Amino acid sequence: MSAKLPRSPLAPPKFPDMPPVAGVRLAVAASGMRYQGRDDLLLMAFDKGTAVAGMFTTSKAPSAPVDWCRKHLKQGWGTARALLVNAGNANAFTGKKGDQALQDCASAAAGQLGCTKGQVMIGSTGVIGVLLDAGKITGLMPGLAANLQPDAWQAGAGAIRTTDTFAKGASATATIDGVTVRINGIAKGSGMIAPDMATMLAYVATDAAIPPDVLHVLLRKAVNESFNMISVDSDTSTSDTVMLFATGKAAHGPLTRAGDPRLRDFRQKLDALMGDLARQVVRDGEGARKFIAIRVGGAASPRAAKRIAMSIANSPLVKTAIAGEDANWGRIVMAVGKAGEAANRDALVVRIGGLPVARNGMADPAYSESRVTAHMKGDEISIDVDVGVGKAAATVWTCDLTHGYIDINADYRS
Amino acid sequence: MSAKLPRSPLAPPKFPDMPPVAGVRLAVAASGMRYQGRDDLLLMAFDKGTAVAGMFTTSKAPSAPVDWCRKHLKQGWGTARALLVNAGNANAFTGKKGDQALQDCASAAAGQLGCTKGQVMIGSTGVIGVLLDAGKITGLMPGLAANLQPDAWQAGAGAIRTTDTFAKGASATATIDGVTVRINGIAKGSGMIAPDMATMLAYVATDAAIPPDVLHVLLRKAVNESFNMISVDSDTSTSDTVMLFATGKAAHGPLTRAGDPRLRDFRQKLDALMGDLARQVVRDGEGARKFIAIRVGGAASPRAAKRIAMSIANSPLVKTAIAGEDANWGRIVMAVGKAGEAANRDALVVRIGGLPVARNGMADPAYSESRVTAHMKGDEISIDVDVGVGKAAATVWTCDLTHGYIDINADYRS
Repeated sequence: MSAKLPRSPLAPPKFPDMPPVAGVRLAVAASGMRYQGRDDLLLMAFDKGTAVAGMFTTSKAPSAPVDWCRKHLKQGWGTARALLVNAGNANAFTGKKGDQALQDCASAAAGQLGCTKGQVMIGSTGVIGVLLDAGKITGLMPGLAANLQPDAWQAGAGAIRTTDTFAKGASATATIDGVTVRINGIAKGSGMIAPDMATMLAYVATDAAIPPDVLHVLLRKAVNESFNMISVDSDTSTSDTVMLFATGKAAHGPLTRAGDPRLRDFRQKLDALMGDLARQVVRDGEGARKFIAIRVGGAASPRAAKRIAMSIANSPLVKTAIAGEDANWGRIVMAVGKAGEAANRDALVVRIGGLPVARNGMADPAYSESRVTAHMKGDEISIDVDVGVGKAAATVWTCDLTHGYIDINADYRS
Repeated sequence: MSAKLPRSPLAPPKFPDMPPVAGVRLAVAASGMRYQGRDDLLLMAFDKGTAVAGMFTTSKAPSAPVDWCRKHLKQGWGTARALLVNAGNANAFTGKKGDQALQDCASAAAGQLGCTKGQVMIGSTGVIGVLLDAGKITGLMPGLAANLQPDAWQAGAGAIRTTDTFAKGASATATIDGVTVRINGIAKGSGMIAPDMATMLAYVATDAAIPPDVLHVLLRKAVNESFNMISVDSDTSTSDTVMLFATGKAAHGPLTRAGDPRLRDFRQKLDALMGDLARQVVRDGEGARKFIAIRVGGAASPRAAKRIAMSIANSPLVKTAIAGEDANWGRIVMAVGKAGEAANRDALVVRIGGLPVARNGMADPAYSESRVTAHMKGDEISIDVDVGVGKAAATVWTCDLTHGYIDINADYRS
C-alpha cells in the first residue's frame, strides 16, 4: 500500500475540542490487520435506552456491515448499545464467511457489554474482497471494553481513518426546552467514494432524549443537506454509512415529533455540524488542492438545482480546469447542458468568486480576466450559476481533480 | 493553447484507403482562426437528391450549429447539398451574434454551390463562448468550391481535428439488391466530451439510394451501438453530431423501409463502420494509454446492462486502477453497485482478460495474480462482468484515466 500521505493543505488548522456526551464512552486499539503503528479499531459504548437512526449507501452491492445495520434498524431506526468500527478491511464482497466474521465481532462486543449482538452496530472500511480475520478483533475486545472512557473522541476519529490525511470531528451544543445538550460527530472519507480505502463513514451522538423515529427524520434532513451534497469523484462506496445516536441523558421534556418547535435549535445545530463534517471529507478529497463551493440558482426545482450543481461538481473537465487555475466557464456551461435539467442557455449567468463571467448567453462585458484569475489562484473557489428558468437553488461542495488523485488511485495497491 | 500532442499509442497504424463515394466531393482550407500551419475547414458538397439523417447532443445548451441542423432536419432527416465544418471555434454560447455568423457562412456556401442555405449543414468544434469570425470562413468559400474533389477524404478527416492526435476514417462496401455501394465515414473527438476542444463529430456518406426517413432509422440504430456506447470522461459536448448522407447514385432498386431484407448487408456494414469510428475516438481519448472493452451480461434488460457497463467505464477509480495496471476488481464491484440497476452480489462473476477473478460473491479460487497482471500490462484491456439476474448484455468502450488527461485539461488554456 501507498506511503503515508501528507496532511491535506485544505485541512482545518486543528482538531476541535470535543467534550464528552453523557452516556457515550469510547476506546480504540491497534489490530495490526493492515496498518502498522496506529489504531484502527473503535468501540463506542452507549448507555441503556440509546436511540439510533442510520442512513446507508445506495449501492446495490453493499458490504456485510451495511446489511447488518439495515437488518437491525428496520425502517432506519432502533436502539443500540455499541458501535464497532474497523479500518483496513471493508468486509465487502466476502460472502457468507464475511457475514460470519461480522457476527463473531458483534458477539464478542455484546459479551463484553452485556447486550444482544443485534444491539451492536458495525462499520468496516478498507480493502474489499479480502476476508476479515475476526480473531484479530475479538481478541482485543476485553481490552477495549476495559478502556472505555468518555473523552476519547479524537482518538476515535483517528482510528477510523484509511487514506484520510487528517482526523475529522465536530462538536456543538444546542438548547432543547431550556436544557443544553451536546452533539459530537466524527467522520472518515477522502472521497464519496471507493470501496478501497475511502468509504465515507460518519457517526454523531447526542445526549438529547429523542425517540428513534424522530431521530431518523432529523438525520435524513441533515444528511440531505450535507453528506448528500458533496462529491469528490462521483464514485459510491459499498459501505457509506451515517448514524445518529441519542442517549437520552439530557433532562428536557419528552419529544414525539420532528416538527416540534422545541427542536428548532437542535435541528439547526445538527444540520450545521453534519455540514461541517461533510465539508471536512471534501477537504480531504484524494489529491485535493482546491475546495469548491458550487451554487446553482434559478432552477425549476430543488432537485433540478442539485442535479445541475452535481453535474458541474462531477465534471472531470471542470475539476481539471480548476486544478489548472483556469476560469474555464465554457466547461461550466457544458456541465449545465449535460445535466438534463431545464436551463435557459440565453439567460445563463455565471459568476466565479462572485465576479461576473458570463450572462445572457455570452461572455459578460464586465469580465475581468485578471480579477477572476486571482480568485482561481486561491484554495477556496466559488462558482455561482443562475440557469434562468425558476427560483430553486442548491449548493454542493467538491474539490479539484489533480495529479495527486491519479497518484493515489493508480498506484495504490502497487 | 497547448503544444501539439504526440500521436496516441492506441492509434491504428495508418489512415485507411478511402475511395470516392459517387456524388460526394470535398475540399479543405486553413482559416488561421486558431491553428497555425494546418487545415481547419472542410466543405463537403453533395449532388442533388442527397438524403441526410442526423443525431445530436442531448445537451440542454447546444451550439448554434446543432440548433441549425435540428431546425433544418425536422424529425431528424431531410435533404442536403453541403456540409461545412470548422475546427477551433465551437460557435457555442455565442448568442444571436453567433447565429448570425453561422448564417453568413451558410449563405456563402449556398451561393457557391447554387443551393439554399437551409441545405447547408454546419458543424463547429473548438473553444466555446468566443464569437466566430465568419469573415475568416466566407472569404475562403470561392476557393473551397473551386477545389472540390472526390478523393479528399483523408484531408477532410484531418481538417476537422482539434486535440485529436490522429485523423479518423473508415471505409466499407456493402451490397444492396446485388449492387455494390460504398460507405465512407470520418470522425473527430478525443473524448465524449467537452465543449473546448474535444467535441465528437462524425460524418458518414454513401452512394446508396435510401430515403431520408429510412436513413434516420439506420443511423439511430448504428449510433446506439457505437457512439452511444463509448465514454472517455463522461462529459457531454454542446456540439456532438453524427450525420449520415446518402447521395442515391447507386443503381439498386427503390427502398422504402429500414426492415427491408435487401438492406441487411448495408445495415451490418454501417454498424461496423460506425463502431470502428467510435472506437477510434476512444483510442484518441485524452491521455489514454489503455483501450478498455467492458462487457456486462446477465442483466435484467439491455438498458440495465448498458447503465452498469457505463458505470464501470465512467468510474474514475476503475480508470485510474487500469492506468496503474492494477487488477482492482473491488472497484469494478463498487461501480456495479452504484449503477442503481439490479445485480446479485452473491452471484457476481468478474473476468479480466478472460481470466477468472471473482465469482459467487468472493474472490475466485482460480484467480492467478500473475496471469491477470500480465494482461493489465498490455494496452488492450477487457473486463467481463455477469451480474447474475437476467440474460441481457451490453458492451461499451472506454480508456484509462492518466496523468496525461490532467496535463491536457488542467493546462489547456495556459
